[in-house]
Amino acid sequence: MQGILDSINSPRDLKNLEFKDMSQLAAEIRQLLIKSVSECGGHLAANLGVVEISIVLHYIFNTPDDKIIWDVGHQSYVHKILTGRQEKMSSLRQFGGMSGFPRFDESSHDSFNTGHSSTSISAALGMAIARDIKGENHSVIAVIGDGALTGGMAFEALNHAGHESRDLLVILNDNEMSISRNVGAMSAYLNRLRTDPSYSRTKEEIEAALSRIPGIGPNIARAANRFKDTLKYFLVPGILFEELGFTYIGPVNGHSLEELKLVLSNARRMKGPILVHTITQKGKGYEPASNHPDVFHGIGPFDVRTGNTPQKAIKTYTEFFGDFLVQQAKEDKSIVAITAAMTSGTGLDEFSRTFPERFFDVGICEQHAVTMAAGMARQGLKPVVAIYSTFVQRAYDQIIHDVAMQNLPVVFAIDRAGLVGEDGPTHHGVFDLSFLRNVPNLTIMAPSNENELLDMLYTAFRINGPVAIRYPRGAGEGVKISAKRSILEPGKFKEISRGEKLAIVAIGRGVSIGREVMRVLAERGFNAMLVDARFIKPLDQESLLKLARNNYLVTIEDNCLAGGFGSALLEVLADNNIECELLRIGIADEFVEHGKVDLLFDYLNMDPESIADRIISRWPAILGKKEKWELLKFGET
Amino acid sequence: MQGILDSINSPRDLKNLEFKDMSQLAAEIRQLLIKSVSECGGHLAANLGVVEISIVLHYIFNTPDDKIIWDVGHQSYVHKILTGRQEKMSSLRQFGGMSGFPRFDESSHDSFNTGHSSTSISAALGMAIARDIKGENHSVIAVIGDGALTGGMAFEALNHAGHESRDLLVILNDNEMSISRNVGAMSAYLNRLRTDPSYSRTKEEIEAALSRIPGIGPNIARAANRFKDTLKYFLVPGILFEELGFTYIGPVNGHSLEELKLVLSNARRMKGPILVHTITQKGKGYEPASNHPDVFHGIGPFDVRTGNTPQKAIKTYTEFFGDFLVQQAKEDKSIVAITAAMTSGTGLDEFSRTFPERFFDVGICEQHAVTMAAGMARQGLKPVVAIYSTFVQRAYDQIIHDVAMQNLPVVFAIDRAGLVGEDGPTHHGVFDLSFLRNVPNLTIMAPSNENELLDMLYTAFRINGPVAIRYPRGAGEGVKISAKRSILEPGKFKEISRGEKLAIVAIGRGVSIGREVMRVLAERGFNAMLVDARFIKPLDQESLLKLARNNYLVTIEDNCLAGGFGSALLEVLADNNIECELLRIGIADEFVEHGKVDLLFDYLNMDPESIADRIISRWPAILGKKEKWELLKFGET
Repeated sequence: MQGILDSINSPRDLKNLEFKDMSQLAAEIRQLLIKSVSECGGHLAANLGVVEISIVLHYIFNTPDDKIIWDVGHQSYVHKILTGRQEKMSSLRQFGGMSGFPRFDESSHDSFNTGHSSTSISAALGMAIARDIKGENHSVIAVIGDGALTGGMAFEALNHAGHESRDLLVILNDNEMSISRNVGAMSAYLNRLRTDPSYSRTKEEIEAALSRIPGIGPNIARAANRFKDTLKYFLVPGILFEELGFTYIGPVNGHSLEELKLVLSNARRMKGPILVHTITQKGKGYEPASNHPDVFHGIGPFDVRTGNTPQKAIKTYTEFFGDFLVQQAKEDKSIVAITAAMTSGTGLDEFSRTFPERFFDVGICEQHAVTMAAGMARQGLKPVVAIYSTFVQRAYDQIIHDVAMQNLPVVFAIDRAGLVGEDGPTHHGVFDLSFLRNVPNLTIMAPSNENELLDMLYTAFRINGPVAIRYPRGAGEGVKISAKRSILEPGKFKEISRGEKLAIVAIGRGVSIGREVMRVLAERGFNAMLVDARFIKPLDQESLLKLARNNYLVTIEDNCLAGGFGSALLEVLADNNIECELLRIGIADEFVEHGKVDLLFDYLNMDPESIADRIISRWPAILGKKEKWELLKFGET
Repeated sequence: MQGILDSINSPRDLKNLEFKDMSQLAAEIRQLLIKSVSECGGHLAANLGVVEISIVLHYIFNTPDDKIIWDVGHQSYVHKILTGRQEKMSSLRQFGGMSGFPRFDESSHDSFNTGHSSTSISAALGMAIARDIKGENHSVIAVIGDGALTGGMAFEALNHAGHESRDLLVILNDNEMSISRNVGAMSAYLNRLRTDPSYSRTKEEIEAALSRIPGIGPNIARAANRFKDTLKYFLVPGILFEELGFTYIGPVNGHSLEELKLVLSNARRMKGPILVHTITQKGKGYEPASNHPDVFHGIGPFDVRTGNTPQKAIKTYTEFFGDFLVQQAKEDKSIVAITAAMTSGTGLDEFSRTFPERFFDVGICEQHAVTMAAGMARQGLKPVVAIYSTFVQRAYDQIIHDVAMQNLPVVFAIDRAGLVGEDGPTHHGVFDLSFLRNVPNLTIMAPSNENELLDMLYTAFRINGPVAIRYPRGAGEGVKISAKRSILEPGKFKEISRGEKLAIVAIGRGVSIGREVMRVLAERGFNAMLVDARFIKPLDQESLLKLARNNYLVTIEDNCLAGGFGSALLEVLADNNIECELLRIGIADEFVEHGKVDLLFDYLNMDPESIADRIISRWPAILGKKEKWELLKFGET
């Protein structure tokens, strides 16, 4: 039985507990977290790390009046459990079930939706300003990890918040990790705060210590007048935050309920921007997770006893990319790899071990990653920037302004393109074809299988200009990998199967969907043609125009329809004055919810059966009603 | 006669001068700057501020072997003058002439192209890494203003550079300004470094001062052991940069040639990342510019004697926006305005004076600006974020992830959309329609004149979701402003004039171009129809389909063709199975160079004559060859 947790249906119930029972509550929450995530998959390690912080926040503050903004948001499970959603933990991240991120349409206790990193301080400052303008009176709290703090926009927000001087509480949840171990000078700085007593001492302790040193103590008062500002450095740790206008408190043991209670109830009464530096351990309380916090960052269902996940049968696109990049880098010493805090997620583990001096994890800094790559390319290196599609949005200007405008040979390995599944709307990579294909000089490819991915990467290194390759999350198609790599002719379509009257021109994962659609149509007695476009930019105009002369066209893409691949084909047809009916299959104009990818495709009517139905309902003639076909094509010749 | 400057055709010539002649050289360069910018327009104040820094950089370092990266790059005129381009100053920013920004296709001394803010440290670090990997040996120098330092990606780069510890020199050109006066805690910090002797003292001075205080001096040695790290705060100014892993040197008088020579020749020999903090004055040496550095930031041709620019005849879109926003904000107290260091440029001067408590200049921080606006909107304010189109690219993810996904009522006032003219490729706002129209929940409008702009803004405040309004740089169309504002029906086309067989559906500035095209066609005996689409999203499907049934269509937009407005129309036609010929007029798939907007339109074949020619060559039938017309439309009914 869950004991205390059973009685917690809202933060109010929490406040009625005796504080001594909180540690029992924490233990029960950890049990529930482990159970739920072992069944549904999810972000375990981060949530195990914020159990005490979440409990004490809800003990001290009053949501929904007070606003808590969870940066990134994958650590909001405990908050969800404490705000009336413990029952829903069994539907975590499932289609139609509870989101793995804060969602204000789920609960009024979720004040701001998150998903991407480093947004919380900006949002919190906006809320604090709104509060002050409207004359309201409540607390605004941003909970941000040390990883998220490396993101430039977090600094922009700190800098502005320090200037604005509004009441605002930032809780720095310092677990020394982003997803993998943190990098950067800020990380080293936080490490000094953590470990060096001269940094971590409270003001009072330092003053006491000072007075014990002969000759210094009594003179401090006199010296203070002259060295007023420099003295601050003696007395105040966290000077970097102090210089930005924050009052720094810490470091605080983020697993000590008593310490958190003391500090947060003080912080609540303090004025101006406050930063509380808490030290936590990712995976706290579950040995497999605390030993391997990177593995348990985002994880699928696992065995609670051992922590093991079921073995995957087929290598992922990510793994194929990573392995082949190592191979290429052995042959070409100018290849370097860059990740924004996603070494493992983007398949660069082996690269980082094999070529430590050519591997760069820049922190959660997509903007810097891309412009740094531009600098490298300008000086003759061949940088590969591996970023998830959804995070490429963060570096859009840098791709246009620093890479494409200088036509520099940077390769963008865009992982997790298309629907990503359980992480949901904040993480689907369904916009990239649309926002990239308007960028001059950029070559854009999307492989239909893992073998093609390797050829594309091979080709990319041989193009003297920027190249983007976007590929989906998860397992490859299980195809044979050719012994020898091919250079793809830029923009060239690949005909996969011949057919009659209707050509499916698909891109990326659209090709495997198209193959299924063909099968369904074949069962109904119709042979469609299937083409793997491979390139979004440039486009194979010649082949397209040829196809368009004799066929209806269907495009399939796992990208939004607006401005996507199908749209690019329409442009070519219009510009060449070709009248041809074209049915576009892709992601509708909405933010797609979370759930297994297959279920999402069903929901979007992008499963093979639905697509076949749509084709037939658009052109019934292809199933034999010849008259309509003839009529429609009349006047073309 | 220009005396010394005449003899400078490359940095080598500079090195042959006697150092005492440098101040004369500086004076001559200032003369040339004032003369050139007074004729061509350009960024005067920033260049007057870096005359000495540029001279000494080229005196100490050896480009093109050593790499200098000019952040933003509008302060590179002096560098251009010193690297063989003084003759070209007369063609500054003119079509076919010299760019106002660094361009490596102009000179090998320009190591990296810039235009947008805060990229230099990232690029420099990339180059330093490439140097080390390739075993080369040269200096890499980023010159960055204190304004650009507020941009998050500069912090990302500092943080990573501190961690990488490579030889890298950052020259902080601190003039206390972005374009208008700087904001933010970092700015306050720099101000303390500048003004407080306890910050600005050198290590030696502070040690000497310490030893004079009774009781402290002799004990420092003993104390040092115990307080080793905290002591650093006593001794080293610029601790914020030191904490990030940089060696801080400064502040240095950026107009003292001797001081710069001493410091930069030392910095050149030092290892690791070095930050030299120089203090300069924007507009130095030309009184009108030093008195009004904001006016002389980017300026058109002016009278050298008085500093006056010719009076503009017609109010700009920017001014109409700013004035009307003040009016609206008087009626609706929930309206707040946000700018990213462009108060004046985006027309918010009066707003900032009238509603100081509802106005927010966040620094060069588009990302933070947008997410902060999301936080404000979430709490019931109506934020207007005014950003130039090209800089909206910096906040793309925040628009998608923080605003649109939560469907928050943030109004994006996107100024400088379309071609901007002399600032060239880095500043044209020609991608926004393409990258915004795939964002779900977003309403996108573009006014064809200033009166429509006001109606759109008026409408935007009445839409419960995110709205983007994009409008061009420069003067309005000179139309009458209606006494009463109208709420536009979302997505509704507006018919401007009736015609036969051919409908020009235009958006934004495309409408005034379309009007001219109509006139040209009318002169040739053909009456085309003109439609002002007003909305890109949603689109007026009903009107479009009606038009498409009876007309050829021409779209005109000052946005790139790939994925733009015309493309959106093609999607609607295809989705509705309407076969209709459509000619898209817009920006080709290239980065458009600098020059007067009219010349650029000519170059792009987007002048009215060229467009009319393209229409007639596509459909000669409209001028009377009825047969072809009939043939083409056969089979449609």
